Amino acid sequence: MSFERENIRRMSGYVSGEQPDDDRTLKLNTNENPYPPSESVTNILREFDPVQLRRYPPPTAARFRELAARLHGVDTDNVIATRGGDELLRLVITTFVDPGQPIGMTNPTYSLYPVLAQIQDCPLVEVDLNDSWQPPSTFAQQMNDAGVKLTLLVNPHAPSGILLDTQEIGNLADELDSILLLDEAYVDFVGQDYDSAELIDKHDNLIILRTLSKGYSLAGLRFGYGLGASSLIEPMLTKTRASYNLDLISQQIAEAALADQTTAGNNWHRVIEERERLRDLLAAIGLPSPASHTNFLLVSAPEGIGAEEIYKKLKERYILVRYFASPRLSDKLRITIGTRSENEQLLAALTEILGNTDPTTA
Amino acid sequence: MSFERENIRRMSGYVSGEQPDDDRTLKLNTNENPYPPSESVTNILREFDPVQLRRYPPPTAARFRELAARLHGVDTDNVIATRGGDELLRLVITTFVDPGQPIGMTNPTYSLYPVLAQIQDCPLVEVDLNDSWQPPSTFAQQMNDAGVKLTLLVNPHAPSGILLDTQEIGNLADELDSILLLDEAYVDFVGQDYDSAELIDKHDNLIILRTLSKGYSLAGLRFGYGLGASSLIEPMLTKTRASYNLDLISQQIAEAALADQTTAGNNWHRVIEERERLRDLLAAIGLPSPASHTNFLLVSAPEGIGAEEIYKKLKERYILVRYFASPRLSDKLRITIGTRSENEQLLAALTEILGNTDPTTA
Repeated sequence: MSFERENIRRMSGYVSGEQPDDDRTLKLNTNENPYPPSESVTNILREFDPVQLRRYPPPTAARFRELAARLHGVDTDNVIATRGGDELLRLVITTFVDPGQPIGMTNPTYSLYPVLAQIQDCPLVEVDLNDSWQPPSTFAQQMNDAGVKLTLLVNPHAPSGILLDTQEIGNLADELDSILLLDEAYVDFVGQDYDSAELIDKHDNLIILRTLSKGYSLAGLRFGYGLGASSLIEPMLTKTRASYNLDLISQQIAEAALADQTTAGNNWHRVIEERERLRDLLAAIGLPSPASHTNFLLVSAPEGIGAEEIYKKLKERYILVRYFASPRLSDKLRITIGTRSENEQLLAALTEILGNTDPTTA
Repeated sequence: MSFERENIRRMSGYVSGEQPDDDRTLKLNTNENPYPPSESVTNILREFDPVQLRRYPPPTAARFRELAARLHGVDTDNVIATRGGDELLRLVITTFVDPGQPIGMTNPTYSLYPVLAQIQDCPLVEVDLNDSWQPPSTFAQQMNDAGVKLTLLVNPHAPSGILLDTQEIGNLADELDSILLLDEAYVDFVGQDYDSAELIDKHDNLIILRTLSKGYSLAGLRFGYGLGASSLIEPMLTKTRASYNLDLISQQIAEAALADQTTAGNNWHRVIEERERLRDLLAAIGLPSPASHTNFLLVSAPEGIGAEEIYKKLKERYILVRYFASPRLSDKLRITIGTRSENEQLLAALTEILGNTDPTTA
């Protein structure tokens, strides 16, 4: 006898990028930061008194929230701290969307979104991005017409890397009847003026998702946060969030990492520099990609060889990149920006793979 | 405009015990372990290389699960590791109970259960415990008649401390049409032969909840696990669980703490010894409690002074215990077992408070 709910039985779980356990593999498949986190993280670990773990941790991560509020020029009650961005996504759905109500998103988008919608038993409304990977001008209207209660938008976009500016985001929030969840997992790599936090004052339907996974080199820590009007943050903070969602060690590490904007900023700068260099070099060997505002590039495979074949041949050489077997993406690869030497290793491997393929005889 | 779902707007959040920020207060209100965790936890923190945090953590905490499986004599696929016991409770509800389907529990019970049921928009079926704090013989029948899909049972029971033996648990699992979630948050303090893990082979509707918060002095870490038939564990592990629910540091600390059964066992033994001693001494000053199998006592206030008044007078003396303003509990206090010297401090304060109350003139 199966006890599973019908919607759970029907669904498949989220499939994350491969996480090999060896030291040999060059991982350019899950958008991890190639540089170490702040030195202050080491200090926290070395000085932490384990006796403190006897007690329950601060329930709402108040100190982290104060720090994040100051950083973004908002109030503490505009901030919720969460177990990675994933927990914020779940809380937003649980708090604001009834089972059966539609959740809207672009196509393509972060592949976790449909999984979370299925868990809440919510139908999806998907609108195709245009050829420039942007939402069509009718996007908000289509969401409203479909009765969407929550619209999920990644900006800068994954997997294309393109950026909508804050003016466009503000317009979308105005036009939408629903909550707009703006997933800024990659925002630290934008590399130009972009400050969406100032929008939350004017838009009481906007929630901004941030994570320390990419920009602060802390994917292993599981720490993120949300920014929004206090009317949106408060029910998640006081009702639907687990009472002690963040352990004491990760709260202290997250505070230290966020406080060290110098280290984080230097790492963002290095990733951006490498991204621009790698993009040019990949284009030169036949692998063009749109200008990216993230820590990855979405390259198109050249004529004569499929993206999946390149993916496999890289994997044979112990280099992992991300291949998506979906219609819009099956001729492309998403490649995370590594360190200079990692990127050189990737370029050498790709040159070898593509050199062995003569498109004129394929 | 409020975007909250109707069931969320109606509900109140979980109210946890007070967590004062000072060093002066003696905390005997949230059942934290008075002894430090294993020395091996310190070693993990001192030796942990922060560069590892760049990467996503092992998604299913496989090493911890193997360790827990060996400890309980079950297979790894009978184990799920979770962010405290709270995450397991949420996953069980999300995976197995549709909104609108009833969730059953005893009255009184862990006050988080109704909150989690409300978040999933599920009605409660509550059955009063008898005078010995045990479920009535008709408990399973009442659950079945009400169409309950999930029955939540704390054993040893909170806040009374009484224990049902494995025979009784097995019978309940047999009789129930629903899943039985057996919440063993306090099981490490049972202090007698009791091994429910052997039941999961025979009962494919039984999920056992364990936590490192109490028995392993790690409330601040947020780490727990569930044991059950693989048909129950698998959908939570692969579908409804967040893909990276446990950060790398807490996985390693949890492994180290679970592996050190000697330290944990010594601490359980010390708590049990102090519990028996404290129970006798409290009874001698007019505060009797049922025999407890946990790390707390549920004492009844004597004639002439209310439990709430004792609670307040202890608080004036910087000693926190737990007072519940509910009908069945409003004449009682739940007191966590502290160290020998903490318990002496409590006894001195109570003697003073009760000595100042002359029941003949009250």
